[in-house]
Amino acid sequence: MAEELFEQSRMALARQGMDVEQIIGQMQAFSIETPSWGYGNSGTRFKVFPWPGAASTLYEKLEDAAQVQRVTGCCPTVALHIPWDLVDDWSKVKEYAEHLGLRLGAVNPNLFQDGVYRFGSLCHFDPKVRTQAIEHVLECIQIAQTIDSKVISLWLADGTNYPGQDDLRRRRHRLHDALQTIVAALPADMRLFIEYKFFEPAFYSTDLPDWGTSLLMAQKLGPQAEVLVDTGHHPQGTNIAQIVAQLLEEERLGGFHFNDRKYADDDLMAGSLNPFELFCIFNEIIGAQHEGNTNAGRIAYMIDQSHNIEPKIEAMIQSIMHIQIAYAKALLVDRVALQQVQEQGDVLAAYRVLQDAYETDVRPLLAEVRVRQGLEPDPIGAFRSSGYAERIARERTGRAGVLGGYPGA
Amino acid sequence: MAEELFEQSRMALARQGMDVEQIIGQMQAFSIETPSWGYGNSGTRFKVFPWPGAASTLYEKLEDAAQVQRVTGCCPTVALHIPWDLVDDWSKVKEYAEHLGLRLGAVNPNLFQDGVYRFGSLCHFDPKVRTQAIEHVLECIQIAQTIDSKVISLWLADGTNYPGQDDLRRRRHRLHDALQTIVAALPADMRLFIEYKFFEPAFYSTDLPDWGTSLLMAQKLGPQAEVLVDTGHHPQGTNIAQIVAQLLEEERLGGFHFNDRKYADDDLMAGSLNPFELFCIFNEIIGAQHEGNTNAGRIAYMIDQSHNIEPKIEAMIQSIMHIQIAYAKALLVDRVALQQVQEQGDVLAAYRVLQDAYETDVRPLLAEVRVRQGLEPDPIGAFRSSGYAERIARERTGRAGVLGGYPGA
Amino acid sequence: MAEELFEQSRMALARQGMDVEQIIGQMQAFSIETPSWGYGNSGTRFKVFPWPGAASTLYEKLEDAAQVQRVTGCCPTVALHIPWDLVDDWSKVKEYAEHLGLRLGAVNPNLFQDGVYRFGSLCHFDPKVRTQAIEHVLECIQIAQTIDSKVISLWLADGTNYPGQDDLRRRRHRLHDALQTIVAALPADMRLFIEYKFFEPAFYSTDLPDWGTSLLMAQKLGPQAEVLVDTGHHPQGTNIAQIVAQLLEEERLGGFHFNDRKYADDDLMAGSLNPFELFCIFNEIIGAQHEGNTNAGRIAYMIDQSHNIEPKIEAMIQSIMHIQIAYAKALLVDRVALQQVQEQGDVLAAYRVLQDAYETDVRPLLAEVRVRQGLEPDPIGAFRSSGYAERIARERTGRAGVLGGYPGA
Amino acid sequence: MAEELFEQSRMALARQGMDVEQIIGQMQAFSIETPSWGYGNSGTRFKVFPWPGAASTLYEKLEDAAQVQRVTGCCPTVALHIPWDLVDDWSKVKEYAEHLGLRLGAVNPNLFQDGVYRFGSLCHFDPKVRTQAIEHVLECIQIAQTIDSKVISLWLADGTNYPGQDDLRRRRHRLHDALQTIVAALPADMRLFIEYKFFEPAFYSTDLPDWGTSLLMAQKLGPQAEVLVDTGHHPQGTNIAQIVAQLLEEERLGGFHFNDRKYADDDLMAGSLNPFELFCIFNEIIGAQHEGNTNAGRIAYMIDQSHNIEPKIEAMIQSIMHIQIAYAKALLVDRVALQQVQEQGDVLAAYRVLQDAYETDVRPLLAEVRVRQGLEPDPIGAFRSSGYAERIARERTGRAGVLGGYPGA
Repeated sequence: MAEELFEQSRMALARQGMDVEQIIGQMQAFSIETPSWGYGNSGTRFKVFPWPGAASTLYEKLEDAAQVQRVTGCCPTVALHIPWDLVDDWSKVKEYAEHLGLRLGAVNPNLFQDGVYRFGSLCHFDPKVRTQAIEHVLECIQIAQTIDSKVISLWLADGTNYPGQDDLRRRRHRLHDALQTIVAALPADMRLFIEYKFFEPAFYSTDLPDWGTSLLMAQKLGPQAEVLVDTGHHPQGTNIAQIVAQLLEEERLGGFHFNDRKYADDDLMAGSLNPFELFCIFNEIIGAQHEGNTNAGRIAYMIDQSHNIEPKIEAMIQSIMHIQIAYAKALLVDRVALQQVQEQGDVLAAYRVLQDAYETDVRPLLAEVRVRQGLEPDPIGAFRSSGYAERIARERTGRAGVLGGYPGA
Repeated sequence: MAEELFEQSRMALARQGMDVEQIIGQMQAFSIETPSWGYGNSGTRFKVFPWPGAASTLYEKLEDAAQVQRVTGCCPTVALHIPWDLVDDWSKVKEYAEHLGLRLGAVNPNLFQDGVYRFGSLCHFDPKVRTQAIEHVLECIQIAQTIDSKVISLWLADGTNYPGQDDLRRRRHRLHDALQTIVAALPADMRLFIEYKFFEPAFYSTDLPDWGTSLLMAQKLGPQAEVLVDTGHHPQGTNIAQIVAQLLEEERLGGFHFNDRKYADDDLMAGSLNPFELFCIFNEIIGAQHEGNTNAGRIAYMIDQSHNIEPKIEAMIQSIMHIQIAYAKALLVDRVALQQVQEQGDVLAAYRVLQDAYETDVRPLLAEVRVRQGLEPDPIGAFRSSGYAERIARERTGRAGVLGGYPGA
Repeated sequence: MAEELFEQSRMALARQGMDVEQIIGQMQAFSIETPSWGYGNSGTRFKVFPWPGAASTLYEKLEDAAQVQRVTGCCPTVALHIPWDLVDDWSKVKEYAEHLGLRLGAVNPNLFQDGVYRFGSLCHFDPKVRTQAIEHVLECIQIAQTIDSKVISLWLADGTNYPGQDDLRRRRHRLHDALQTIVAALPADMRLFIEYKFFEPAFYSTDLPDWGTSLLMAQKLGPQAEVLVDTGHHPQGTNIAQIVAQLLEEERLGGFHFNDRKYADDDLMAGSLNPFELFCIFNEIIGAQHEGNTNAGRIAYMIDQSHNIEPKIEAMIQSIMHIQIAYAKALLVDRVALQQVQEQGDVLAAYRVLQDAYETDVRPLLAEVRVRQGLEPDPIGAFRSSGYAERIARERTGRAGVLGGYPGA
Repeated sequence: MAEELFEQSRMALARQGMDVEQIIGQMQAFSIETPSWGYGNSGTRFKVFPWPGAASTLYEKLEDAAQVQRVTGCCPTVALHIPWDLVDDWSKVKEYAEHLGLRLGAVNPNLFQDGVYRFGSLCHFDPKVRTQAIEHVLECIQIAQTIDSKVISLWLADGTNYPGQDDLRRRRHRLHDALQTIVAALPADMRLFIEYKFFEPAFYSTDLPDWGTSLLMAQKLGPQAEVLVDTGHHPQGTNIAQIVAQLLEEERLGGFHFNDRKYADDDLMAGSLNPFELFCIFNEIIGAQHEGNTNAGRIAYMIDQSHNIEPKIEAMIQSIMHIQIAYAKALLVDRVALQQVQEQGDVLAAYRVLQDAYETDVRPLLAEVRVRQGLEPDPIGAFRSSGYAERIARERTGRAGVLGGYPGA
């Protein structure tokens, strides 16, 4: 059945002049990193939602991530959060990951859960706090070297809640100084991603509130510093695809934290509420790549979500599939036709070039990609029938939680 | 000095034809309820911020509330949250409150922190969960009767995170049915406030998302049901003053939960970020009262904030002062002049009537109100010099926290 | 080719248990009204964009609408705007419309372009202005009777730009009074739709700002008054599908003005920026209809857009196709399966029921619907190859514009 | 009376350690430019509102601006819009301005009202259109030289309405190239301000959507290019004060277009809806100046508003007064105390330093500033009693309007 549907797809695409084999090749080369913290319990400020069998140690998180990789085939790496994932023996973790068919990915320092960070970390008015924060990041760089990770992914919760609380320009100086110290400590082949966020947990000012601030900082810091785009971290209405286009032009798009939202930083499954927007983001990337943009080829695609009420592993698999759908559709955009009608000022024909790709049902194509990798065509079915979720719910229950991350978790 | 400033104010206002004694009388009659949970630790989803000496038992919360009353003179009641404030012996609590010069106010049921509420409470698809939720509210009604409280203040976290997750119309039916049961159990002199919120913790749909939904529900439920306006629970740009005007017209404005915000439900100190908006809200109320609207005289003014990084008691006092400033300024609006220029279509003169009131420095007037009540003119100074904050930080430290409310608190 | 693709679709849907013939029947019964003003020139406050051959008389608008009907087969009616479409001889217009295969639809009074409406129309403080506004609506009712239209569709630009400018509660009284007079004049088989809008052209308060206000008004006015939802008239993030669900429950959803937006009331082509949201709206309607909701069957689907930079007729056709795509996908939702997983609390399975429908490529199905109606499978191709656009650009050029609607048009 | 109130103010401020004479000096040195187009008719996309006697020639606009200067004493310059203000003989205009006690200020090119700009100006895909747009700006530079203006203030309406309509990265290249040509033509003492806007009139992407894009462009273009902040051009919730702080740090804050808004780019009177936000913006500027920031001393303060329903000259005077109030309050902030409590982490004390300044009634102080300049203490009263508005309404009526600016005006 899947074969027949793919054959129909293949023929339909071929009739439109698409090179289906090339697209399959590009899908096979596309991978997404899942976050260790996505496998543990999470919640809102009102409640942490415990999920039966949710991972509580790094080993369990890796085991869960291995399930995602097993059924999707495109998630070979796992991002870490320090100290949530701190262990004594990193070589043992690395070995275990390899045993599971995984590699360790971006290292995410935590500069918000220690009590000393009440008024900020790298931007704090107290130099002792800034020093502690810098040292934590330096420790993360050490860990990254130990586990062969090439990315430090930095998100700051720094900001103020009231006008006057702190001096905004002084905070910016402190941030710049601290980041200089951090970048100076990076090995030559490691990159620093600087994330930004419109608001939360700070409610008046946030020290890295938008892509402009992060990019300016990155430019001051030199070529190893790049910007990380979290799709949920923008004001309502923001054209994220255009931000992506600009960062690509500046050659500073380090990576993504994918998730979706309707309101603020809702951290829902990527592509679940506005799948067309996700498609438009990938359309910019693939368009740039098509024209030889070198940044487009080295973007780190990562997920950062908070699965509160839904099962964590299944939600991760589903998110991956949403991202694959958006990416595959963006690959189907006829770029030659697009440029042609753009330069004729044919607004509607240009929109239809995108729409033709977007309305295409790419699920048979993605099933084929999986089958060729020796996977089941349907990752959700494969995971559900494995009995893994039931097994961990049974086996992990009753055990004391280790460092969960979320307060109360 | 304070006397001299007041005398200057008095004369300036008198020259504008204001009856300063009447305004002082109205300020003396104006009171605001503080929430028990505002004295305990709170936080964001990323972190709970412990404050030295923050209250952890209901007794401590009442003691802290008594400090606010001691220096402001306008906060004689305290709202409760059940089960956070659940005790065995309510008569003992009531007695202790009276001993402190306080009364117990609105009872707030909690329908979100029990694990069974993962998919909702009164709107849940499972009748067993709905029954449990209803029974909790009925218990709260019992408690309210015991402590002579006349208000049940209901906020639901109910909603869905994804399209399709549950049927929106069926949820509405369930909500209506449940509220009918609850209202039927209300004593004749008790009111049910139905709060609404745009989003959070639900991120696709919220079952009571706006004033329209709450008002419709209240109208179906009969005269004991009214709407509660939390100033932080609206989409950006919403004209809250107009909502207040509409609810007053419908005679269904039960009360307020005051706080301020710049982004979402930031729960900052009332009047701290957009004091003019707070003034405009009171302007509607006082305008309605001026014309004999009966609802305007029986509104419950309550605070609901989350003091994360600032000292709790002092932040509460400061919020009270902000609200008093806005209220006093609204009392200064020359309503006769206003209507006159409105009906001449003199847009700018009309705006200036409001602005004249708003730009007036009412702090000398408020100091006088306090002095006449036997209080210090400056509540912050009075609190700071009392040594209370230092004392509880010293005495309460090291004790185990009881039910804090926030996860992890 | 189209046949082969449809056959593949048919079989795929049949395998999922769908009754394809029934869906085709529902698509054939689905119609959308286009607005006369959508065929004339329009613009922003900065510029009116003249389009070569844009219609300037009602006769031309009807001719253009007939082209849309010719290629889509689902747009048999045209909404009017008075006085933009005012003519001396309505019977002649009606005859001409019938000759073109069209009927005249909703009548839209204009209560904003006369200079007397500077401070409002039905809400104005001056009773003379209110009387003039009421009389204009009564005239529209007369016209509607003359042309056998059953709908008066009322949008008010009324509001204020500054706090204090006018009294919000008095404006509400005036509005209620005026609407009562209007409803009293409605023939028994005519409905009054009350539209709402978050803001613009008023920038402090809008007298009908949200669905709650419109619904309350409709309820006070009796069964002939209903609410009109314009998809571009909400605060960012608003769950429009939920508003639709609520109005269906209250049996007061009169109709829609479809368009899409990314920011404010951008009036872009329906379904062009967030097609999933449009699908979710239809999902509520079809879900309600499935359960016997009687309101769901009598909704007036109308378009209200502003084609500034794109060709008007082609943009209208394309919008119709977007709406058909969303509607068809909503028909594919497996409602039995949906309810089943909803009541198991299986969040992800429930979302996937919607997603399975949404990801389906329904274009072959829609082509079949058209072919069975004797139309070309591709409306855009059919229109483009007709040469109509070129012909009117040639023939209509140079003629003086009659009442265009937009200032400067 | 005014004297007595000032004396009371002076003493109160002196008691707080303020140097009142210094503040008066700073207020006297503070000036704001008014825009020629603010004196002509304007409107929304729905309607242009004609005001009796609204200026229609540049000479009339200058006469009206002279009235604003006459009563405020702080508006000696007038910004021009080309071609709305295009004249044959600039020396005659310059002479007339001087005769009125005015100077000509920033020159604003118009790159949106010519039909060729349908798809953009400097970003258009067609090099012929880009050349036309560049030549218009070069013409504006010529005019600026002729009239001794030192600022070209550039706002682009460029953008796209639909995904795919044009290539976002190519548009950015074209913009950069065009701006390079423009900057190369600037005389050494002339600056180019690059304005940004979140959206409108483009509704999918805007080529200069945020401060980050404008700043990056300015940095590429060299020291004569700076950023212009229009206070109405941001997403809801944006911390404009922080953007100002960042631009000051980068030494690229060219100037402001002041206005206020509740929703989108509402263009209401500056400081009319959120006066505290305006105060916070000035607080950043004065804080920076206090610490020797050189950019802070050379900012061009300009107004850009759309007075639709209110009288134009009076609205301009009132806006100037609102800006003066905010500026004066920001001057009252005790910066030594502020830094001290900031570095103690005393959030509430820090907020109160700002609040103390904000709650002060500065109107007596501003009246004194005027009186010392030989003006009436109350500009509105002075203007109203002059009879000027009535005179121009009488004299200018019936005359044909010349280039008004707004479509239909």
